Amino acid sequence: MIIEKIAESNFNDSVFDSKVFGKNFSDHMLIAHYKDGKWDEPKIMPYGPISVTPAAMSFHYGQTIFEGMKAYKNEDEEVFIFRPEKNFERFNKSAVRLNMPEVPAEIFLDGVKAIVDLDRQWVPKDYGTSLYLRPVMFATEEAVSARSSNEYIFCILLAFAPSYYEKPLSVKIADFYSRAAQGGVGSAKCGGNYAASFFPTSEAQKDGYDQVIWTDSIEHKFIEEAGTMNVMVRIGNKLLTAPTSERILNGVTRDSVLALAKDSGIDVEIRPISVEEMYEAYKSGELKEVFGCGTAVVVSTYNAIGFGDERAELAPLSDEESFATQLKKKLKDIQYGIAEDPYGWRVKIEETVNA
Amino acid sequence: MIIEKIAESNFNDSVFDSKVFGKNFSDHMLIAHYKDGKWDEPKIMPYGPISVTPAAMSFHYGQTIFEGMKAYKNEDEEVFIFRPEKNFERFNKSAVRLNMPEVPAEIFLDGVKAIVDLDRQWVPKDYGTSLYLRPVMFATEEAVSARSSNEYIFCILLAFAPSYYEKPLSVKIADFYSRAAQGGVGSAKCGGNYAASFFPTSEAQKDGYDQVIWTDSIEHKFIEEAGTMNVMVRIGNKLLTAPTSERILNGVTRDSVLALAKDSGIDVEIRPISVEEMYEAYKSGELKEVFGCGTAVVVSTYNAIGFGDERAELAPLSDEESFATQLKKKLKDIQYGIAEDPYGWRVKIEETVNA
Ligand SMILES: Cc1ncc(COP(=O)(O)O)c(C=O)c1O
Ligand SMILES: Cc1ncc(COP(=O)(O)O)c(C=O)c1O
Repeated sequence: MIIEKIAESNFNDSVFDSKVFGKNFSDHMLIAHYKDGKWDEPKIMPYGPISVTPAAMSFHYGQTIFEGMKAYKNEDEEVFIFRPEKNFERFNKSAVRLNMPEVPAEIFLDGVKAIVDLDRQWVPKDYGTSLYLRPVMFATEEAVSARSSNEYIFCILLAFAPSYYEKPLSVKIADFYSRAAQGGVGSAKCGGNYAASFFPTSEAQKDGYDQVIWTDSIEHKFIEEAGTMNVMVRIGNKLLTAPTSERILNGVTRDSVLALAKDSGIDVEIRPISVEEMYEAYKSGELKEVFGCGTAVVVSTYNAIGFGDERAELAPLSDEESFATQLKKKLKDIQYGIAEDPYGWRVKIEETVNA
Repeated sequence: MIIEKIAESNFNDSVFDSKVFGKNFSDHMLIAHYKDGKWDEPKIMPYGPISVTPAAMSFHYGQTIFEGMKAYKNEDEEVFIFRPEKNFERFNKSAVRLNMPEVPAEIFLDGVKAIVDLDRQWVPKDYGTSLYLRPVMFATEEAVSARSSNEYIFCILLAFAPSYYEKPLSVKIADFYSRAAQGGVGSAKCGGNYAASFFPTSEAQKDGYDQVIWTDSIEHKFIEEAGTMNVMVRIGNKLLTAPTSERILNGVTRDSVLALAKDSGIDVEIRPISVEEMYEAYKSGELKEVFGCGTAVVVSTYNAIGFGDERAELAPLSDEESFATQLKKKLKDIQYGIAEDPYGWRVKIEETVNA
């Protein structure tokens, strides 16, 4: 790994005052190039623009995949990342589905560790804040021809993630637009899935909702996931979530929350959840909580669900009653190095680059 | 429109000897920026790399759309483009679906005309060859946050399009993977649709096919379109093609071929075509021709169709018998300024920029 340190750091404490997610980048980025069937040596260098032809294939045919992770700091200034092998694995699954080259662990995992180590002062300490890590790969071959690219850039970017103002969200259950097809790319973290979701989301926003809960594209009968979150539904005291499939992203937060729920004695069921079942439960008062799980917001509670034209308001639960609140706290306490980590999820970033 | 001409042209006649599509770019490109809710003045300038942050949103969330058109030259050195308003219209439909700003005619259409005029020596004269025109728009805002970008680049690139070696293609009918969902973005010319198709296409290639004919994502019972072509099926003397929908690109070639077919007295039917119907017709000897229609290859004949594990070989037809051959010739003769153009499809590129 080549390391070219920035001449003078751009860091100052006011960075942590920002309320904007993913706009304030750290001093460095990692770049590796794929060409002639192989990856070159990755280079960590000052964050900044790159020179690209407008004929770069990702601008045309959308071959682009990414991951989202976070680095956390505890009171002792120790820096942690969370289950990075999960993101590494998923990244390469996305790569295969998008017909892109896999990225070796020495570039992805060692790269993440090295750059977080180097930019560790950019990891904030306040509970709820973190440094967001964005591995991304995009096609760069200079060609306007609808086929897979032969050249790629893999890159890791780091940007400040403020604590979200934890306002509950309202979500509309998709009844016309779809995110993913059977046999499609829904389970890959590829750019096209997100691009496709923005217009339906803006339509839902016009109807007074913050986000969309996607449903199957066949009949819109079963819920799948939300924009950047897997969805959990609590009916009575049972916590339900849809099984992952080729249409649903296999979320790291989902997996972690499910483990924590089971180990907290919560009755968990992984099975298809129909919109009708949710609606019936709402009518009978059994729909206690619906929440999203994802790296960006950890757990996000929904306070209103749009079933067609009907807006179902969910009464807020106390912290003691709410599965969402309890599970979120358990997960964050592990991530921030506050609680024990019996699962071995936390990975400490050793100080080597700066030493 | 700002025009910054190249100091010294890179053109030489050997450009036209290339056998590669979309790799040899002309002297100039057009660039326009969208920011703060409006487009700046487009600029035609020497083709070359641009400076972009790796945090440009298109690399992450895949907001990117494009068009494909061609410029043709006749014996009198006159340069034509073909039905550009169709591409302009489709581009802006794609923009809406991808939640991107529409591009005004003064940038898209006037831009295409101005740059083709300026680079007219790059338009080859040989029948079958052309200058491929690639309008493209991609998200450039510097942010890793899953939402629509607030900044975009619109760009027009020009690259040599050689005459394809007109080998018939073999196609596999999709029975597992899908290209588009109901309620999805199939009818938009957005990057993600292509990126999603490369892996299934490479799998079909392992099975000995060149391309895939996509089917509905629900049951794979009805054919939709091919990689970069709409599909026409001739059963007996009837020419069938699937209706366009939110899942199928509304091809300009498809539309033109249908008009030519009708005016040639061919019995045309636009309706869903089931895989079963095609297979039955194959068994009974009534499946005469299957071909793709698209700007790149105009009309491409398929000589083998993969129905599941069965490879159905289609006997070649003579030029007189083949609808594909006849319709292709009619269309090309209009495009290349050889035949009359009763439809008003051809648009002559006036010499103004160089004058
Ligand atoms: C579509 C989608 N679903 C679910 C998730 C949740 O996944 P994770 O918990 O790994 O962040 C994300 C992303 O972060 C996502 O983009
Ligand atoms: C998916 C797809 N279908 C069909 C077509 C044919 O469209 P057109 O005839 O406008 O080129 C294309 C593109 O060129 C395409 O990319």
